Amino acid sequence: MQTTRLEHDFLGERAIPDEVYYGIQTLRALENFHITGIPLKSEPLFVQALAYVKKAAAMANRDLGVLDPTIAECIIRACDRVASGELNDQFLTDMIQGGAGTSVNMNANEVIANVALEYMGKRKGEYAFCHPNNHVNCSQSTNDAYPTAFRIALSNKLVGYSQALGELADAFAAKGEEFRNVLKMGRTQLQDAVPMSMGDEFRAFATNLREELLRIEDSRRLISEINMGATAIGTGVNAPHGYADLVTKHLREVTGLDLSLAGDLIEATYDTGAYVQLSGVLKRTAVKLSKICNDLRLLSSGPRTGLFEINLPPLQPGSSIMPGKVNPVVPEVVNQTAFYVIGADLTVTMAAEAGQLQLNVMEPVISFALFTSISYMTNACHTLREKCVVGITANAQHAENMVRNSIGIVTQLNPVLGYETSAEIAKEALKTGKTVHDIAVTERQLLSQEKWDEIFTFENLIRPDFIR
Amino acid sequence: MQTTRLEHDFLGERAIPDEVYYGIQTLRALENFHITGIPLKSEPLFVQALAYVKKAAAMANRDLGVLDPTIAECIIRACDRVASGELNDQFLTDMIQGGAGTSVNMNANEVIANVALEYMGKRKGEYAFCHPNNHVNCSQSTNDAYPTAFRIALSNKLVGYSQALGELADAFAAKGEEFRNVLKMGRTQLQDAVPMSMGDEFRAFATNLREELLRIEDSRRLISEINMGATAIGTGVNAPHGYADLVTKHLREVTGLDLSLAGDLIEATYDTGAYVQLSGVLKRTAVKLSKICNDLRLLSSGPRTGLFEINLPPLQPGSSIMPGKVNPVVPEVVNQTAFYVIGADLTVTMAAEAGQLQLNVMEPVISFALFTSISYMTNACHTLREKCVVGITANAQHAENMVRNSIGIVTQLNPVLGYETSAEIAKEALKTGKTVHDIAVTERQLLSQEKWDEIFTFENLIRPDFIR
Amino acid sequence: MQTTRLEHDFLGERAIPDEVYYGIQTLRALENFHITGIPLKSEPLFVQALAYVKKAAAMANRDLGVLDPTIAECIIRACDRVASGELNDQFLTDMIQGGAGTSVNMNANEVIANVALEYMGKRKGEYAFCHPNNHVNCSQSTNDAYPTAFRIALSNKLVGYSQALGELADAFAAKGEEFRNVLKMGRTQLQDAVPMSMGDEFRAFATNLREELLRIEDSRRLISEINMGATAIGTGVNAPHGYADLVTKHLREVTGLDLSLAGDLIEATYDTGAYVQLSGVLKRTAVKLSKICNDLRLLSSGPRTGLFEINLPPLQPGSSIMPGKVNPVVPEVVNQTAFYVIGADLTVTMAAEAGQLQLNVMEPVISFALFTSISYMTNACHTLREKCVVGITANAQHAENMVRNSIGIVTQLNPVLGYETSAEIAKEALKTGKTVHDIAVTERQLLSQEKWDEIFTFENLIRPDFIR
Amino acid sequence: MQTTRLEHDFLGERAIPDEVYYGIQTLRALENFHITGIPLKSEPLFVQALAYVKKAAAMANRDLGVLDPTIAECIIRACDRVASGELNDQFLTDMIQGGAGTSVNMNANEVIANVALEYMGKRKGEYAFCHPNNHVNCSQSTNDAYPTAFRIALSNKLVGYSQALGELADAFAAKGEEFRNVLKMGRTQLQDAVPMSMGDEFRAFATNLREELLRIEDSRRLISEINMGATAIGTGVNAPHGYADLVTKHLREVTGLDLSLAGDLIEATYDTGAYVQLSGVLKRTAVKLSKICNDLRLLSSGPRTGLFEINLPPLQPGSSIMPGKVNPVVPEVVNQTAFYVIGADLTVTMAAEAGQLQLNVMEPVISFALFTSISYMTNACHTLREKCVVGITANAQHAENMVRNSIGIVTQLNPVLGYETSAEIAKEALKTGKTVHDIAVTERQLLSQEKWDEIFTFENLIRPDFIR
Repeated sequence: MQTTRLEHDFLGERAIPDEVYYGIQTLRALENFHITGIPLKSEPLFVQALAYVKKAAAMANRDLGVLDPTIAECIIRACDRVASGELNDQFLTDMIQGGAGTSVNMNANEVIANVALEYMGKRKGEYAFCHPNNHVNCSQSTNDAYPTAFRIALSNKLVGYSQALGELADAFAAKGEEFRNVLKMGRTQLQDAVPMSMGDEFRAFATNLREELLRIEDSRRLISEINMGATAIGTGVNAPHGYADLVTKHLREVTGLDLSLAGDLIEATYDTGAYVQLSGVLKRTAVKLSKICNDLRLLSSGPRTGLFEINLPPLQPGSSIMPGKVNPVVPEVVNQTAFYVIGADLTVTMAAEAGQLQLNVMEPVISFALFTSISYMTNACHTLREKCVVGITANAQHAENMVRNSIGIVTQLNPVLGYETSAEIAKEALKTGKTVHDIAVTERQLLSQEKWDEIFTFENLIRPDFIR
Repeated sequence: MQTTRLEHDFLGERAIPDEVYYGIQTLRALENFHITGIPLKSEPLFVQALAYVKKAAAMANRDLGVLDPTIAECIIRACDRVASGELNDQFLTDMIQGGAGTSVNMNANEVIANVALEYMGKRKGEYAFCHPNNHVNCSQSTNDAYPTAFRIALSNKLVGYSQALGELADAFAAKGEEFRNVLKMGRTQLQDAVPMSMGDEFRAFATNLREELLRIEDSRRLISEINMGATAIGTGVNAPHGYADLVTKHLREVTGLDLSLAGDLIEATYDTGAYVQLSGVLKRTAVKLSKICNDLRLLSSGPRTGLFEINLPPLQPGSSIMPGKVNPVVPEVVNQTAFYVIGADLTVTMAAEAGQLQLNVMEPVISFALFTSISYMTNACHTLREKCVVGITANAQHAENMVRNSIGIVTQLNPVLGYETSAEIAKEALKTGKTVHDIAVTERQLLSQEKWDEIFTFENLIRPDFIR
Repeated sequence: MQTTRLEHDFLGERAIPDEVYYGIQTLRALENFHITGIPLKSEPLFVQALAYVKKAAAMANRDLGVLDPTIAECIIRACDRVASGELNDQFLTDMIQGGAGTSVNMNANEVIANVALEYMGKRKGEYAFCHPNNHVNCSQSTNDAYPTAFRIALSNKLVGYSQALGELADAFAAKGEEFRNVLKMGRTQLQDAVPMSMGDEFRAFATNLREELLRIEDSRRLISEINMGATAIGTGVNAPHGYADLVTKHLREVTGLDLSLAGDLIEATYDTGAYVQLSGVLKRTAVKLSKICNDLRLLSSGPRTGLFEINLPPLQPGSSIMPGKVNPVVPEVVNQTAFYVIGADLTVTMAAEAGQLQLNVMEPVISFALFTSISYMTNACHTLREKCVVGITANAQHAENMVRNSIGIVTQLNPVLGYETSAEIAKEALKTGKTVHDIAVTERQLLSQEKWDEIFTFENLIRPDFIR
Repeated sequence: MQTTRLEHDFLGERAIPDEVYYGIQTLRALENFHITGIPLKSEPLFVQALAYVKKAAAMANRDLGVLDPTIAECIIRACDRVASGELNDQFLTDMIQGGAGTSVNMNANEVIANVALEYMGKRKGEYAFCHPNNHVNCSQSTNDAYPTAFRIALSNKLVGYSQALGELADAFAAKGEEFRNVLKMGRTQLQDAVPMSMGDEFRAFATNLREELLRIEDSRRLISEINMGATAIGTGVNAPHGYADLVTKHLREVTGLDLSLAGDLIEATYDTGAYVQLSGVLKRTAVKLSKICNDLRLLSSGPRTGLFEINLPPLQPGSSIMPGKVNPVVPEVVNQTAFYVIGADLTVTMAAEAGQLQLNVMEPVISFALFTSISYMTNACHTLREKCVVGITANAQHAENMVRNSIGIVTQLNPVLGYETSAEIAKEALKTGKTVHDIAVTERQLLSQEKWDEIFTFENLIRPDFIR
């Protein structure tokens, strides 16, 4: 038979299973919110960050004499235990809730209070000795503690994402080196353009993604601005003098992050600009990844009726009916991830726009969207690198043959023959199926074979020099 | 020690734990796709629908003589078992995959084949007797089986959603009746407009949502069009004569749904229009729910410095710092759900746009987005009804006082005094703080007290009659 | 020297150039709103619809005795003149305004009043004889007149759009017939799949777009529900008994549209569901057009290093540097139009969500977005048809050669050889560069030449029959 | 009778009206593209930037000896004339076109060539002496000239926008100062929270917007990276040695902007990341402006049945039926502008994602969306400042009365009484309608009148100090 303890809040009294560390307000949240079915514990970095915030607050409150040192120490120990991940299963609130994060904050307050009570030799629920609100939440409000923890968790989560993205860029760069001397046709608007090195194409993917690493760092800077000490709406009501700066200092040490205190706490308490910016950065990277995957799928199209310039590593039979078919399943799944992230950016946008007056109550869905997007993007980067990029091979001969047979090489004749003559050659080649060489050198004798050979060396095709 | 069996496909050989029913292709999918971490089994209606499709296909193949009746019967029995949900734990493919659903289709083919093999007295993996591709997938391709199962699952999932939404509308309608004689100020552009009945306001919410039930039915009609028999790209290659119609007929009976065969199978195989339409319907309802929740939050704002016309049932303490504060947490969570669904609609849009040539390879993310949105919307409807709407109470006296004290009632004088005179009265009332009655009757004597009384009865304020 | 007349409203007095028909409230709107720079007159159907609404209202007011018959007749004549388009240059309000359309409604009221005054032998501005509010706007509010006019304009504008879209679908259907016997490779996931008729591919485009015509009709039905008689918030304050039904009847006759009166006028006054639905339909068609244009660009890629199955008509030199390059500029501009329309759908979504209480004040931006999207889509349909589709030609021989040389035809051997053997053949073909025939018939002798010939007839490739 | 000249390109010959400066390729573009009806000249900064690019290119070509100095000088003079805006009416290409900007680039090439020809004493169309492609476009491609001009135009356009936004922020800051001693209730989740200064609320708007100025500068930095010298696809084909650096140097001087050459020209030629980032910044500001306008509308709601804390300047009668009604029309139009910009961001996102291989062909719609969004945002900032913010007044007495009468002030008792006791007081106050003072001091005597007075001074309410 399960034993319970009674807890109360100003709405009444409830029985809580005695083995759980959370209390009545968490219980109410569990009853009230059933949207996603995904619990808070699925973001362990968030649970950890909540513990960091509570720890730093306890330290500052202790230093400023508003929290009894013994209670403070027990709270700090409890925070360490929560931060270790040991009690993650006590964080069960649904990822989307009403209340602007109050349920999440109270979940942390209650768990930490009860762990602290045990350290004090008390039983869970004996809140007179260590109270979720009066002690654990001392000098805080959900409206500063929640966004601060959220930002810390985001910052830490971005580290892993950034690394995954960087490794993906490196993998593209390595292919860029590997394919340095593969000659291929460059294409604009899906039409044959001018020749290029396949290595340049892959290195450009690396360049394209490496820029994102800088943008992620921009985001981390913006989200490192916190509003501890703002309490309810930024006026700092109920926080002692000097608290805001002191808790920020402690929090910097506890987290190892370069956190700074917002200059305008009224504004900082409702502002979601940093989330919108971060979501925009994730979206931008998603857009780029999707473009790159579109290219990989195009370049590997075929094998007989497509471009077939590259081969993606075969991972699984591609069809339940078409034997031997192998599909670009990894770029496909990355495209889909990108679409998800772009959708989630809209969720963030709307939630940000819906903020009213002194608080944005929609932060929980912003946190859900951002955490999910970062996770999915991280997974997508790993998958794309491991399961696809590192194993890409080039069909170099086929690629070069297409160049040699193309009309697009006529552009290289512009400086010699001028745009209009070159255009006439191109037009005739298209109409008759002849090669550019046939028309320009053999038939029309517009340039000598020697000049032709000078212009159309492999080296000059792949890395064009200016020849008049 | 775990025993394994060896399975092979054209990419090689792999050991499969002997107790699992899925096979090598599912194993590869499990290795290849790690984006969401959410497995296929989290949508049991989808697993069930896959079994329905495979069952109907086996029936049609048997009838047409392309599948041995004994094998067919074992497949059918296996499908029944899968449809019952008993083997849901065998459906582990990540909800987003590349391959246009091939992994999902093969997951079903493999599980069903192995269950059928056991019914035949064979061991799992003895595919010579019942092969995932040759027998279970007979006359099918992922490209018809997957979208057909998806559509069946959607249709069934919409039933529960529609019911939840209907019940929510009914709850609003009941409040509409309850508040029939509560007089309140109508507001346009957040400015005081003219009086109205609070009952009408709540009944309008019901009207607003009931229209959505019709739109959901439109969607169900559109998604009931399937493409069985199209096989790979709609040409029906490898499907016997008469198969398309026959399997559709069987599937209608197996599912109890009014499914129809698409007229143009080439088009139907890549078309995602029905998903876009359905997603648009979900979005439209999300937009409406969000607007309604915005209204509920506005109307319950206060208690002392807001509109305070209604009270939402208090569910949990609203603040970790502000004592006694109770927040509209349920409308808030519904707003957030709406933002999620609107974001997911964008995901669907982009995925639909990304379709190329004979297939839309992005269907898995469409299915993920739609299943999630329907689940969340269903949850939101239940939550909003149970935890909020049914417990709403009106502050009738306060609401009426605001009307009586308003300037907006001057509109009722238009037919008597004309727009310009009425405007002057309004302007003076605003400037001086006087009431409309003071100015119109007492001071300016523009109409008699009798006329005033005739116009401003409670009944005429709440349900205005035309009086000149 | 410009002569002016003085007009006043309850905010003060202003001089109005005597030659203009609009009055003080329009003048204020012109001063207040400078966002888009695009004036109301750029949507002549909207101006016309406003005149229709005012005319029907005057008729109903006259019939019900609340408007003097002489004044009514002059208003009706003025409405006819405005509806003719003759005074479009008097409608200058910016397409996006605050005020929920009040400025637009007043612009119409003022112009019509002044035209009516001239018919009455009065001078402009002598509003005692015919007043914009008291007479022209009699029994109306912006909140019913504006959305009703908007809906009428939308309905009429959709006629032209629907026709343009239908003609585009017809053009695709004609190409479907023309290309009936062009054999080509079908592709799924950009990988070679199985053969098909190019005619089927183009007919499918027609099928795909023709479905949209039905959806447009759905939208026209939804927007044909109007709220005349609702006045300010749906209570019908200041409208005489019987007015709502009577004005709707007159409006049906005046417009020739099958308009119906909303059952719940409170709801109808704020509901933007029909706009969201219509915007969703436009978006869906945009998604489809974009997919089709992506296909056209893919299929015409080349000429030497792409798929090159079809030729789009050359419209202009494609490059300032690459001679002879011709680009698929029309599909490209249609893609871009689609992206615009999809963005505009988001504008509509957000505007709809932002509605509050008894009115959605954001209707002007909804109208701007919808009118623009319909215009652009109509233009895109015309352009795509005239400048591209009708001139498309097929490279039939090249397309067939690709099929004959493909590995994808191996699928046709499934019913004869089974999936696994066929997969082995495919694998070897890919590895060695051999043809399927070489391996299956010549080397492995898995089927006779006769059987091969039976299976791989042109007819059976292009429209596959089931052969075991 | 209009005289014409004959021009030809590789698609044929066309008659061009002799008085126009554009040529055959522009004519074709005018015939081919009719989507928006908005001509290029509506963005004069873009026309100017094209002239700058052509001028710098001519200078570099001259310096490097690939362009005859006399021709170069005439081209440079022609560019100056175009840059002056004098020939804007020659830039008529529709803002959305296919061809990745080729029509825009050729429009500039042709106009400049013909102006230069006149300077050379030749007639328009005598391209042998100065050719649009060979001379004006020398060492360039659309694919570097177009995006470079686009970026220069964006950078210049952002200057005006940034200034408008900064002035708006300043206006809010001035109000922040003005309202410094207005006491009002802070609200979270639309529920009464704790007191604050109205000045802080308005200063926070300024803070919120001033952050955007920094983000705009980030964007300007990103878009200052150009790809001149890349020519067709980034390989620099047809550009002489040293050209890329030299033209960039000239362009820096011509424009006065801090332009830099991209490190990876292959990547830079297709990358649209900077546009996505800029669009995201515009969206973020739109989100913030919309939130602020929502607040202004809420705070000015009433006058009798809303919050009524502030008054917006009355600009126009707010209703055609409700006399005396004045609406917050300016915040409303800004909200709508924000929704437009958020929609346009989606257009940019989709266009960016649609890039393929060596070029993003969708840049024209990106340019259309960005130019429009910047224009509308600039207009919205001006409008909001001039027509609204500077004229806002506070209802100070009413705002303070609401605070004094509120329950929310109970939070200030937390440090003295603890959260639970305070919550009981709050609960009783809500239930009975009593004030916090009545319950805490008079009835329950939980604190002395002296303590109360110490805590609830005006100063301590508006800028709370920590009192235990």
